[in-house]
Amino acid sequence: MTERFCQTDVLAVPRFANIATFMRAAQSPISPGLDIAIAGVPFDLGTAFRIGSRFGPAAVREQSRHVRLIHSVLKISPFDLCRIADVGDAPVRSFSIPDSLALIESFFRSITDIGAAPLAIGGDHTITLPILRAIVRGGPVALVHIDAHSDTLDKIQNERLCNGTPFRRAVEEGLLDPKRCVQVGIRETLFASDDHDWAKASGITMIFMDEFNTRPLSDVVAQIRTIVGRSDAYLSLDIDSLDPSFAPGTGAVEPGGFTVREVQQLLIGLLGIRFIGADLPEVSPLYDEGGRTARVAASLAFDQLCLLAYGRPKGRAEVGT
Amino acid sequence: MTERFCQTDVLAVPRFANIATFMRAAQSPISPGLDIAIAGVPFDLGTAFRIGSRFGPAAVREQSRHVRLIHSVLKISPFDLCRIADVGDAPVRSFSIPDSLALIESFFRSITDIGAAPLAIGGDHTITLPILRAIVRGGPVALVHIDAHSDTLDKIQNERLCNGTPFRRAVEEGLLDPKRCVQVGIRETLFASDDHDWAKASGITMIFMDEFNTRPLSDVVAQIRTIVGRSDAYLSLDIDSLDPSFAPGTGAVEPGGFTVREVQQLLIGLLGIRFIGADLPEVSPLYDEGGRTARVAASLAFDQLCLLAYGRPKGRAEVGT
Amino acid sequence: MTERFCQTDVLAVPRFANIATFMRAAQSPISPGLDIAIAGVPFDLGTAFRIGSRFGPAAVREQSRHVRLIHSVLKISPFDLCRIADVGDAPVRSFSIPDSLALIESFFRSITDIGAAPLAIGGDHTITLPILRAIVRGGPVALVHIDAHSDTLDKIQNERLCNGTPFRRAVEEGLLDPKRCVQVGIRETLFASDDHDWAKASGITMIFMDEFNTRPLSDVVAQIRTIVGRSDAYLSLDIDSLDPSFAPGTGAVEPGGFTVREVQQLLIGLLGIRFIGADLPEVSPLYDEGGRTARVAASLAFDQLCLLAYGRPKGRAEVGT
Amino acid sequence: MTERFCQTDVLAVPRFANIATFMRAAQSPISPGLDIAIAGVPFDLGTAFRIGSRFGPAAVREQSRHVRLIHSVLKISPFDLCRIADVGDAPVRSFSIPDSLALIESFFRSITDIGAAPLAIGGDHTITLPILRAIVRGGPVALVHIDAHSDTLDKIQNERLCNGTPFRRAVEEGLLDPKRCVQVGIRETLFASDDHDWAKASGITMIFMDEFNTRPLSDVVAQIRTIVGRSDAYLSLDIDSLDPSFAPGTGAVEPGGFTVREVQQLLIGLLGIRFIGADLPEVSPLYDEGGRTARVAASLAFDQLCLLAYGRPKGRAEVGT
Amino acid sequence: MTERFCQTDVLAVPRFANIATFMRAAQSPISPGLDIAIAGVPFDLGTAFRIGSRFGPAAVREQSRHVRLIHSVLKISPFDLCRIADVGDAPVRSFSIPDSLALIESFFRSITDIGAAPLAIGGDHTITLPILRAIVRGGPVALVHIDAHSDTLDKIQNERLCNGTPFRRAVEEGLLDPKRCVQVGIRETLFASDDHDWAKASGITMIFMDEFNTRPLSDVVAQIRTIVGRSDAYLSLDIDSLDPSFAPGTGAVEPGGFTVREVQQLLIGLLGIRFIGADLPEVSPLYDEGGRTARVAASLAFDQLCLLAYGRPKGRAEVGT
Amino acid sequence: MTERFCQTDVLAVPRFANIATFMRAAQSPISPGLDIAIAGVPFDLGTAFRIGSRFGPAAVREQSRHVRLIHSVLKISPFDLCRIADVGDAPVRSFSIPDSLALIESFFRSITDIGAAPLAIGGDHTITLPILRAIVRGGPVALVHIDAHSDTLDKIQNERLCNGTPFRRAVEEGLLDPKRCVQVGIRETLFASDDHDWAKASGITMIFMDEFNTRPLSDVVAQIRTIVGRSDAYLSLDIDSLDPSFAPGTGAVEPGGFTVREVQQLLIGLLGIRFIGADLPEVSPLYDEGGRTARVAASLAFDQLCLLAYGRPKGRAEVGT
Repeated sequence: MTERFCQTDVLAVPRFANIATFMRAAQSPISPGLDIAIAGVPFDLGTAFRIGSRFGPAAVREQSRHVRLIHSVLKISPFDLCRIADVGDAPVRSFSIPDSLALIESFFRSITDIGAAPLAIGGDHTITLPILRAIVRGGPVALVHIDAHSDTLDKIQNERLCNGTPFRRAVEEGLLDPKRCVQVGIRETLFASDDHDWAKASGITMIFMDEFNTRPLSDVVAQIRTIVGRSDAYLSLDIDSLDPSFAPGTGAVEPGGFTVREVQQLLIGLLGIRFIGADLPEVSPLYDEGGRTARVAASLAFDQLCLLAYGRPKGRAEVGT
Repeated sequence: MTERFCQTDVLAVPRFANIATFMRAAQSPISPGLDIAIAGVPFDLGTAFRIGSRFGPAAVREQSRHVRLIHSVLKISPFDLCRIADVGDAPVRSFSIPDSLALIESFFRSITDIGAAPLAIGGDHTITLPILRAIVRGGPVALVHIDAHSDTLDKIQNERLCNGTPFRRAVEEGLLDPKRCVQVGIRETLFASDDHDWAKASGITMIFMDEFNTRPLSDVVAQIRTIVGRSDAYLSLDIDSLDPSFAPGTGAVEPGGFTVREVQQLLIGLLGIRFIGADLPEVSPLYDEGGRTARVAASLAFDQLCLLAYGRPKGRAEVGT
Repeated sequence: MTERFCQTDVLAVPRFANIATFMRAAQSPISPGLDIAIAGVPFDLGTAFRIGSRFGPAAVREQSRHVRLIHSVLKISPFDLCRIADVGDAPVRSFSIPDSLALIESFFRSITDIGAAPLAIGGDHTITLPILRAIVRGGPVALVHIDAHSDTLDKIQNERLCNGTPFRRAVEEGLLDPKRCVQVGIRETLFASDDHDWAKASGITMIFMDEFNTRPLSDVVAQIRTIVGRSDAYLSLDIDSLDPSFAPGTGAVEPGGFTVREVQQLLIGLLGIRFIGADLPEVSPLYDEGGRTARVAASLAFDQLCLLAYGRPKGRAEVGT
Repeated sequence: MTERFCQTDVLAVPRFANIATFMRAAQSPISPGLDIAIAGVPFDLGTAFRIGSRFGPAAVREQSRHVRLIHSVLKISPFDLCRIADVGDAPVRSFSIPDSLALIESFFRSITDIGAAPLAIGGDHTITLPILRAIVRGGPVALVHIDAHSDTLDKIQNERLCNGTPFRRAVEEGLLDPKRCVQVGIRETLFASDDHDWAKASGITMIFMDEFNTRPLSDVVAQIRTIVGRSDAYLSLDIDSLDPSFAPGTGAVEPGGFTVREVQQLLIGLLGIRFIGADLPEVSPLYDEGGRTARVAASLAFDQLCLLAYGRPKGRAEVGT
Repeated sequence: MTERFCQTDVLAVPRFANIATFMRAAQSPISPGLDIAIAGVPFDLGTAFRIGSRFGPAAVREQSRHVRLIHSVLKISPFDLCRIADVGDAPVRSFSIPDSLALIESFFRSITDIGAAPLAIGGDHTITLPILRAIVRGGPVALVHIDAHSDTLDKIQNERLCNGTPFRRAVEEGLLDPKRCVQVGIRETLFASDDHDWAKASGITMIFMDEFNTRPLSDVVAQIRTIVGRSDAYLSLDIDSLDPSFAPGTGAVEPGGFTVREVQQLLIGLLGIRFIGADLPEVSPLYDEGGRTARVAASLAFDQLCLLAYGRPKGRAEVGT
Repeated sequence: MTERFCQTDVLAVPRFANIATFMRAAQSPISPGLDIAIAGVPFDLGTAFRIGSRFGPAAVREQSRHVRLIHSVLKISPFDLCRIADVGDAPVRSFSIPDSLALIESFFRSITDIGAAPLAIGGDHTITLPILRAIVRGGPVALVHIDAHSDTLDKIQNERLCNGTPFRRAVEEGLLDPKRCVQVGIRETLFASDDHDWAKASGITMIFMDEFNTRPLSDVVAQIRTIVGRSDAYLSLDIDSLDPSFAPGTGAVEPGGFTVREVQQLLIGLLGIRFIGADLPEVSPLYDEGGRTARVAASLAFDQLCLLAYGRPKGRAEVGT
């Protein structure tokens, strides 16, 4: 592994120094040899109410100065397993949803083209759609979706491409196989009594927070693993799945969410699933308190990075460390 | 149901738009036909230490823009069950406790006079006393009181009408039947060793946080339902019952409180109790962080609204929706 | 004058109480008899960088609780001179610039239709364009524009309808007469060396902050009055004309701006100009500090209200106070 | 001078260490030998709208860690001139205006009884009344009053003892000679057109901000000195005299106020007036930004301390430094 | 017990009044007769990344105004059991680690010399080392260490005396017996795979958060008590053991920590252990939100005070209450 | 000029996107061909009281997203005149003043070695000393120093290398010629009456704020230019020269400072002086409000960049624009 893909030495260099990248990964353009590309997606035009997640990638980069090198529980050291870089932000436009989605899709397509898996930091949840369009190539994939919201509405204010609809669009477009999709933590109050009808009818498994309260966490993990099976899968972790006390910095806060420890345990439970990509959307620094939400996002994104790194054996072989 | 009592259409109208009312309910004066009147009570002169809950109603109105229409778990749609309006704030005076309490009592009396049930957003906890004086008409009622504090002191600094005393006064005045009163979540450090003696002697059931830690939540719910029975009851939910990590914006913060999920489950467990009114006091925006506490209060007030709406069958019949 | 158009009595009713309206004006739909309609315009999709002024109207309403009844220097009491109401927010859409601009234009057209003058609280500066489209009826009008930015670019990221372009569009559409337009306080760093060429060529008078530093304020006032003359005129006061120390809560902060006292003196100097409408855009609460910017905006909007009220003799006559 | 009255050595001891007192003065009970007693007055029940200045003394103590020993311009070293101590807070009650005012008066009477001059840190502006009642002994004194508000209303919501009335009460009670009273910086919008009539009729000189804008500062200083003459005088400096950009942490913010440099120059200009006491009210930390207002208050209180110390020659003689 | 060591009467005196001390204890120099000395240690030069805990003692003093007199669960009233005082801050230097550590050690030595037990409020975790050097006199003691980090590295950036190393140094210096040391709550991501090797090899018992998630809390308490046995023991409670949602105001935030209720239950479970001293380091107000972390720290420090007071029978005997 | 040294196109790329560099300059290692190297210096161990400016460079980078390309008044486009890059942060150590100063000096020496001029963003004011040690090569240079503090003490708490002493050290070491040094804006209260004696005796010209209040700004500019003459000069602009209302985010706040407009005018007045380097220290984000101080710093640093770029004709020639 060349020095270029190494993380800054966190004991020798003070963590307050230098330009922040995601988890202090090396900066690199998208180029052959990368196993995992961490990218920002500063897009939030799909937000109907509390806009601002365009500032999410910058905030998560800054707070990821905290993250060290090795996972506390899994003992995985992703930078030793894989060649990982911060490839910067996907291009977007300030005024156009369709232009931005096309640019995002194209950017992630180039990541897939070089054989790397993406870890995307949002931006609002609309971004999952262009990412899936870019990276899903051999038929629909499975989904692990941790969120307060199902995001399977048909439209909001007549807009079909927004943060309330990406998973419906992705199923419609054959990118996700609803039978292998599972949503965990749903607890949103409803706009209308049929908000969840489509998702249920499609075959998506929804595990509501109310149900989660009454089941052992290990049981939920087992159910997720059964649903996903040995398929290629995508991991979408909305920061608003957490209770606002842990993650106030997000647009659509829903009191009554997961603790960080619960999400950490869920993620640990996913080790070994064949993830082809992951995202962490909806960090919105304008509503944050002292960078606290971005700090949690950085920590959970590191967990996602470990899951991605663990599942990419070729990268490990090539590195030969 | 006339359009006047309808909530703004939350999918068609952006939630950041228009003047905020409680849960986007229609504004209305107190007038016949209302089933539930949501009112602010911007009174905080009963606060010995960290004053400021006078700004609570405005903050909760603003944050209740988030709330949608249908309860996540109960699937209750209160605006379909009942005629509900935001009737504005009870009148108060800036310099006088007794004048303010008289004005508040009179305001809530007019709500009861038209046959509506009140949902009051505080203001400090003193407000429960004038509300009970206004709405209790056929003998003492039962009480479900979720709080970090018992609020049954005799006086603070010689003041008998303050936020540390309302439940003692209400029992003394025959508004509450202590045998049917239950307090959940008490965890305050004590001024003196006899702080809770009167409450215990009166027959009020106190479930301390220390005890709550060791019992299943469903067991506590069952006990509450047994104590309250089929009586008319009042529901008082102090925001400081929550741990400060969930609700920092309050005067008398007591570390070690409920999670939002616990309070949500407690409230769900109360469905079917015959509540004649409810309040949510002690939201204090000056100590809040980005409106986060007011956001939680809006969410829990919506839960209270569902409990009130469910228990008012006449309203449902008349509406005929 | 009916009670309906009166401002709440600020000495008898505590200012923290009740639902906030602009300067505690009565709420009213747009209806005949109004002289001045104060309206929120929660539109910010024209913002390329720091979005968020959609929350401006709500914040200014809340902070305008501070404003009393009579101007400190002019001794004008606008609520005694005119029938004034808070007519709520113009309708907007969360995802569409053109749909929103059409809705805003239609809303302000209805204000002009009843013979009232609008005072619009933004929202981003794009809103001036649909307002001018709605209210300019007998040929181009004059403009007093106080701002850090000229807002006469042709486009930003290919978008011709955004907050960097409204005055160029308005001149192009014949709504403004550039010879009678004056911009005061311009101090923006430039994207390109020709940023101001169009404005200068069009005949708009630009008074840069650098020039303002060296001239007596009274001299600037005299020049503005000469340029505007006795024409009908529009008054657009961008909150970012103020130095960020006075108004941090805005998107495009430019250090080195006006003091509040300077803007107050400029506004006082405009008394008697025949204003047909006014706006105060770019208040962005997400960047504010404790509502401070919204507080200043409320104060300056009251000054604008005095200028509008003073210039509407018919209203005064009819009121007969 | 005993060590007990010395300020902590600011170069040897880090200023973040130890319990904060006003300007790191020694703590002392009120006892003979003191020349100047700095006292907190945590009373804010006289506040009709934005309460919270009860927390002012604690915040100013904390921020006065910044202040060093010698005035930047005057080169006065008050701790070398006089025996100065932080005598703690005046006693107050949480629920009663009259009880609190009586306790405050008694506390300051004991300061006068030992021959010391008080410097009082508020608390709301009501406190000036009991202080004057305590310390004015040989007939009415002169007043230099720097404020955004005249505070000479008769009552607010029927309350005659509140922060809008102290100077009216003090004149009525013969504590102040209105002919030798001057108010500088008044800029409040008015509740009613006669708000200032009583003050003007009484003979108090009011210098409005609008007038201040057009006069040299030195001219204003000269006028103040002429009005006060060689009388004993009291100095009341309301923190809201400053523009909110300098002092956001106060209840009744009025945009368009003094800069800090202007108030510093005004205070320097008062050197030599025979001040018998001074106060600095209305610091309200709940509205402050990072202690910034309390920091300014600490700085200006140090300036007041220099003025008091300079005018107390006996202390100087005894010290014999 | 003389009045001097009494806590301010919290019902009679408003808690916002007077100069703040730790839990409103009397201020006192270190002098014979004290049973417990509460001291601030404003040292943070041992912090590699997010410095600022030098401001911790001041913040905890301020927030400890909230604490009342008697423990909610244990019903212990420490001020009745022991003579307790706030002895001020240990002296430190702004620029030198060794000079500061020597001064701290000397300060705590004087506390031990008079027979009192210290309760130290940090300051960063380096402070535990000089405290142990001062108070451990008859051979190594046991340790209960609640923390997100093991703090047993050899050095950071070549510095052997910093907040990542104190427990390694203390074991090396014979101050702690590693076999009787237990660390609870460790969850840090690792700098290197051998970060914990020394601690494990030394015999220190480490209970990781991952393990804690799967065990009953009572079981963990029992294990701690077995490890500590009847030895003299020291109690070190790092505020970052709490999840950042409860305690954001600290330097090295690690998402996924204890709830306050868990730490409260752990502390209650330690009643009866023979603690010779205790500390609560790493409160860093610059990262706090409205004093919330300092509030929690004050509450937990009161719990520590109860444990210390309960275990000092001589003090109890002498007091004779 | 290769694309590598170009600034991101600010109209085409949203300014919220991508990793922030100083003024969106290209990132580059220190390498031949650079004319101006912008560097962060995250060192704050020279701070006796309110530490935290180690986070300054990151904050200024983030806020410099705002800055566009061409100076508002001077019309200088520095990126067209010179090859400019963000060269990252100087290396520092978390625990050692001397090690850090040596590393900083070495880093800036490499900048001078390639013939580039440095623009350094602090970090505390200590950093000026190692920078001067690195870049002053042909005898002492002149100094323009804008600051609230003289920073010419001999030591603080026995430390001779801290932020209160750099200019004394630099004169002692023959790096600065005191006769050609001018300090503007000094207004600090004094630790001792002789604080400024050394500076005055050395021949440094000190222009105090009190004097500045009474002189035309243009007159001060002329005096500065006379003192500096045609020498090589260094420009040190302490952010605390500004009033805290403009720049609250700094350690040693001194109420009563410059407005931003004054400093902007001072800087414009310096055009043509032969600056060999410049710095902007003491931005301390932990005390900032929403990045506001860092925003001002970014703006003033851009002004400094224009001054540096204008004075480097060789760079201009080579570029061949």
